[in-house]
Amino acid sequence: MLTPIYLIAITAEAMSGALAAGRRRMDIFGVAAIAFVTALGGGTVRDVVLGHFPVGWTRHPEYIAIVVGAGLFTTLVASRLRHLKQLFLVLDAMGLVAFSLIGSEVALGMGYPAAVVLMAGMLTGIAGGILRDVLCNQVPEVFRRELYASVSLLVCALYLGLLAAGLSPERSTAIAFFGGLALRLAAIRQGWRLPSFSYSERWD
Amino acid sequence: MLTPIYLIAITAEAMSGALAAGRRRMDIFGVAAIAFVTALGGGTVRDVVLGHFPVGWTRHPEYIAIVVGAGLFTTLVASRLRHLKQLFLVLDAMGLVAFSLIGSEVALGMGYPAAVVLMAGMLTGIAGGILRDVLCNQVPEVFRRELYASVSLLVCALYLGLLAAGLSPERSTAIAFFGGLALRLAAIRQGWRLPSFSYSERWD
Amino acid sequence: MLTPIYLIAITAEAMSGALAAGRRRMDIFGVAAIAFVTALGGGTVRDVVLGHFPVGWTRHPEYIAIVVGAGLFTTLVASRLRHLKQLFLVLDAMGLVAFSLIGSEVALGMGYPAAVVLMAGMLTGIAGGILRDVLCNQVPEVFRRELYASVSLLVCALYLGLLAAGLSPERSTAIAFFGGLALRLAAIRQGWRLPSFSYSERWD
Repeated sequence: MLTPIYLIAITAEAMSGALAAGRRRMDIFGVAAIAFVTALGGGTVRDVVLGHFPVGWTRHPEYIAIVVGAGLFTTLVASRLRHLKQLFLVLDAMGLVAFSLIGSEVALGMGYPAAVVLMAGMLTGIAGGILRDVLCNQVPEVFRRELYASVSLLVCALYLGLLAAGLSPERSTAIAFFGGLALRLAAIRQGWRLPSFSYSERWD
Repeated sequence: MLTPIYLIAITAEAMSGALAAGRRRMDIFGVAAIAFVTALGGGTVRDVVLGHFPVGWTRHPEYIAIVVGAGLFTTLVASRLRHLKQLFLVLDAMGLVAFSLIGSEVALGMGYPAAVVLMAGMLTGIAGGILRDVLCNQVPEVFRRELYASVSLLVCALYLGLLAAGLSPERSTAIAFFGGLALRLAAIRQGWRLPSFSYSERWD
Repeated sequence: MLTPIYLIAITAEAMSGALAAGRRRMDIFGVAAIAFVTALGGGTVRDVVLGHFPVGWTRHPEYIAIVVGAGLFTTLVASRLRHLKQLFLVLDAMGLVAFSLIGSEVALGMGYPAAVVLMAGMLTGIAGGILRDVLCNQVPEVFRRELYASVSLLVCALYLGLLAAGLSPERSTAIAFFGGLALRLAAIRQGWRLPSFSYSERWD
């Protein structure tokens, strides 16, 4: 069930990466690179940290073509994308939730304990965006935005809870997917945020 | 011997990460994430680079709880921490030395040559702080502070030297630990620094 | 054939890393660290992503000595290096091409498909410079400079194409090496750049 959603999600993430590259006036190679890292970087970090080789995209070279293609296509249509902002937010939310569930699945399949499964899900969901922001020289927005990474955490926890309650993987995936999607979209609409922590003292 | 010191050290490192996140006004998820990366990121980088799987914290999910808990706790007590600055400097120094020795140990156990053992010790000691600073969008302070990474290097070299001289691992660890701690604390008190290199020409 | 070129290239890359560290007024430990990362970081990232353990430099501790030595030596002679700018550009171009071919070779030897071979070549060629720029808190210049990463891509593609056409690895390497070097040097001389993508809308 998650495969078509995954393909849509990496396309949307690649396009968001391309726009971030454009804000830094990168050349089209930079656009392709940031698109790649944003879309496939989270899964790469997860696989490397879990010792899950070969890394996902190396077995699916077509993913490279999809995300590079989406990044370059974005440079042609960028001026019109803003009107599709609502659509992008939905696709991005689908991606966040699908990435999280796929990451949990990988860690579960390797026999890692529950806390590591949650970490793997979150890494898959958010590390691509973190890498994008680091390469664009800005503080990762995932650490400051409306409920985002916390949606990833809740989705993974719900998925594990449903499995533990005896539901099938398919059903657990479906419930966690739609629950997480609804939460993320509600958070955007309502502007829900986690409390933030501001500390200005320097100790030097 | 190093385990209780290690647990104290990851707690102190997590708290330093949380304060750095607060200086960037992150939300509490960001605080937890930076706390995690600061405390456990160095060991993760070491394990990944050495091909030492599974990565340490994935076998000790309690470490995740400790560092996330320490990070969130920091947001509650931050306004009073400054008075404990001296204590933090000592805990941080203990962490630096303990991490370095643990990292050396891991590389030694895998049969790597001496130069790689030194690199593994330093990576464990300093990479968490480097990741914290990169995610907070600043130049890593470990590259500019009083003797810090060089303490890590000397600790690892001393440890290897003592082992080579025929001392037991326990005794070598103890001597290197207290020697390194004394050096780091003296460096802070005296303001010892490595010479710095300033170069301002642009070649464009 | 590539080994002597590789040794020259890591020396030149280490020196470029040291100058970047000097522009951030790092201490000499920071200089050595940035030199190391610039010269050996690309191969490290490639090996980790491909699951190719042990990582290259861990089997060749002499590489650590070379790049750290080159970095520290740079601090002594920095004021005179500018006159050698032309030489550095040639050495850097040789490094880019040699790294790319070595990276392709590693991925080929592990049986990865062609698209992954290209990615591995590019990662080896450019990831060291990207890490240098991230640690120096600036947007990676490889995403904005004259033809650079794209030279890496073309070199790898040419190499694969020549192998597929039945040429020996030695001959394919030689042709791709000199072809890539000529292209990079022509790009510098002529100021050839990829088109850049500028996007200034914020969607918030």
